[in-house]
Order: sequence, then structure tokens, then C-alpha cells
Amino acid sequence: MSEPAPDPRPAFVLIRPQMGENIGAAARSMLNFGLEHMRVTAPRDGWPNERAVALASGAGRLLDDAMICDTTEAAVADCTFVFATTARNRDLTKPVFTPEAAMAEARKRGARGEKVAVLFGPERTGLENDDIVLANAIVSVPTNPDFASLNLAQCVLLMGYEWRRSDDMPPAMEVELAGTDWATHAEMDALSVHFEERLDQAGFFWPDARAPAMKLHLRNLWSRLPLTRADVQIFHGMMRQMVRWKDRG
Amino acid sequence: MSEPAPDPRPAFVLIRPQMGENIGAAARSMLNFGLEHMRVTAPRDGWPNERAVALASGAGRLLDDAMICDTTEAAVADCTFVFATTARNRDLTKPVFTPEAAMAEARKRGARGEKVAVLFGPERTGLENDDIVLANAIVSVPTNPDFASLNLAQCVLLMGYEWRRSDDMPPAMEVELAGTDWATHAEMDALSVHFEERLDQAGFFWPDARAPAMKLHLRNLWSRLPLTRADVQIFHGMMRQMVRWKDRG
Repeated sequence: MSEPAPDPRPAFVLIRPQMGENIGAAARSMLNFGLEHMRVTAPRDGWPNERAVALASGAGRLLDDAMICDTTEAAVADCTFVFATTARNRDLTKPVFTPEAAMAEARKRGARGEKVAVLFGPERTGLENDDIVLANAIVSVPTNPDFASLNLAQCVLLMGYEWRRSDDMPPAMEVELAGTDWATHAEMDALSVHFEERLDQAGFFWPDARAPAMKLHLRNLWSRLPLTRADVQIFHGMMRQMVRWKDRG
Repeated sequence: MSEPAPDPRPAFVLIRPQMGENIGAAARSMLNFGLEHMRVTAPRDGWPNERAVALASGAGRLLDDAMICDTTEAAVADCTFVFATTARNRDLTKPVFTPEAAMAEARKRGARGEKVAVLFGPERTGLENDDIVLANAIVSVPTNPDFASLNLAQCVLLMGYEWRRSDDMPPAMEVELAGTDWATHAEMDALSVHFEERLDQAGFFWPDARAPAMKLHLRNLWSRLPLTRADVQIFHGMMRQMVRWKDRG
């Protein structure tokens, strides 16, 4: 008996959504294009949400099955590649994908067993930098610069549409990275925390006024690096060895 | 004096729309992607429509400028090529375009001075056969066959998105980190050497027999990481700080 093939479809993660209507509309848009894995962090009006259920109509199943989390970190802990959707230019250095390229990438990674997530920000404000640093890459919809704002459900619709479209594209060539044991987000988080703690003890984040920006930059840097689980162990080992060296005096 | 170039942008024609909200949302979606020519035939609730104006917010200008007609025939009388959007299979024999192909075609025709229209049907029923026979071709959005229905504003959004996309057909391959100040190979080498020396002093490469393989792995790891010059300075800084910490004892 062979293993069942892993589900290649990405999870769409609604971060701190405000209006139940938008959550329901997002569920419909996902199902329109064959996507079924919804995750929701800290919905403003709690969960389950009546307005979301009413608007989802035929797509209510996605809400029933949705994974509900308190934090963005928790929502992507088991994922190996995370996209953040944002219209604005950010100072954070990340690869920027078009929706088309992003969903082609998601399909390629999904096909080789990776778990991919796409983050969508709250209606009014969009994603915070603290969310975006957790992502490996940004997706930006090419809108009219003079009238750029898309709402949550529209953004979900366009990403779902591109997911569906990516199905018809010629199968990606590359196989060479198949089987690579990429670190999960939880593992990258643990590495980032380990370095941050030790560097803090070592007095790296100085002066104090700059510490938050330095830490943000560093977390963003880690999240951008394509590390395998073995690489992560090497970085942990480096840091542990530096501390042992110090302790030996 | 030369003639001004003709406006290549297609008109989006809402056929017998019912809810003012959807007309307003359609105007917004059009403007999101730089489209400004709206036409409306026989809006159920008359014209102007307060709900449409309220929902259009920043895109109200499109409603002010919209051409209002009694019939579909009148709405496309001056057009040379007409697309009908419909999700359903029809008995009418027409070429069927994907949204992408349709908007590429619209751009090509628009560029040579043709006037192109795209018809969108009323919310509940979609376009009638009497409307569709007026079209030169059908556009069909590839949705999930088990959950196919898109609403009017969603359909407008997707067509607008494809219009915009047809403009720059981004080099479908990802990563436009243009302007990013990537580290040179020499800088990556220097970073690798810095870490190797310090880790060697710290006793990281142990036991001796494994040291060459560990060093090779580490050099390979660095060379694989997409680091900017700023990132490289941060890694140098981390290591220097760990050594200072040790030296302070």
C-alpha cells in the first residue's frame, strides 16, 4: 500500500479579521477555486461567528474545519513556506512575488510535500511588520497606484484565482530540491529566539533605543533564509559552542 | 499636430444590475486596475443610485461618467468587439476565452483603436441568451465546478485584474528584489572565514576527524544564503559581540 499523496493546497490564514461578513466571503472565494484550508488568528468577534456562517452559505464547511489560533506564529508553526499579502512597500527585505508567481511557487512546493501558508491582514490596517517578518516572501497585487486598496475578500479571491490558474501551467521542471528536509516555521522561530536571547545577554542589542528595530531586522533575516533542519542544528550548535567558550573563560 | 492616441481601455457593461451596492463595488474594482469606462443598461433601481454612490466611495467618478442605456444593443452599438462573461455552458457556438486571453485580446484590439466591451450579467440570473448573441466571444472564469458561482463584483474584479496584468505580463518568474544590495561573493567569503576562524578557536569543529567535513558543510551553507551587505554586517557583528562577551569573562 502506498501513502496517500499529501494535500498540495496552501492554507489561507486570516490574521485578526474584523468583520464576520468578510470571513464568510473569504470562505466562498476559497471554495470557488477549490481551496479548503482556512486558518484564522484572533478573530475580533470570537468564534464561531454567526455573520461569517451566514455569508459563507455553501462554503460553511471551511469555517467548521478552520484552525483557530491566538497568534500568527502558532498559525504557521507547521508550515515550511509562508507568503504575506501586502500592498504597501515595506522596509523589510523579502522577495516580492506577483500573485501568479506566488501560487505557481505554492503549487510546486505543495507538490513535493511542503505545507504553504498565505497570510491576509485585517481589513483596516493590513498586516503588521510583526506578522510580515514571519513570512518567507511577500505577495503584492499589481493595482492602480492611485487607487490601490483591495479589501480582504477581494485579495483572497485573486489569490484563489491564481491558485486555480496555476494548475493549468506546465509542471515545474525542477526536482533537485525534492526531498530536502526544510525547517518548519516553529523550528526557525526557536532558532531566532535562541540567538536573540544569547545576543541579548552578550549585549548585542545596543543602544537600548535601537534594540527593537535590531531585533525586528534579525527576525526578518532568519525568516528569509532557506534553511534545512540540519542547517538549523548547525546554527544552534554554533551559538551553544560560543557560550561554552565564554563559560570556560 | 498629431491626434491624441485613442484610449485602449475596454468598457465594462453592467447589464440590468439589481443591487446598487454591486454597481458601486464594481466601480471600485475597475478603478483598482485602472479602468474607468463603465456602462449600465436598465439598472433595476433607476439612476443615479444612492447605494451605488455610497459603495463606490473613491471611485464615484466612474458612476458620474457612466453611459446609461436602455438595452444591451444600445450599450455596445459603437463597439467593434464584445465579450460576454458567463460561467455556464451555453448552446451558443462562440469562441471561449479565459480571462487572461480575453484581456490580452482586448489590449491588442484597443491598441489599434478598436473599442472593446465586456458584458456582465445581472446578479441572480447572469446574461440571457439574447445578450450573449450580441457578443463576439465568451469569457469564462475557471472556477471549481462544484462551487462555481461568482458574484458580479467578483467577476468585474477578476477581469480588471487580468486587464492590468496584460499590461506588463510580469516576467512570470518571481523575485524582483531589484535595488537590493546583495553581498558579493568576496563578502560572503570573508564572512565564512570569520565564522570559521572564531568557531575553530571556540572548539566547534570537533572531533578533529570530522572537522574538514563540517567546515565544508558550513561554507556551503553560507554560499547558499541570500544575504544583503547589511545582513553580512549583522552576522559579523554577532560574532564580534560573542567574542567580546567571552573576553569580558
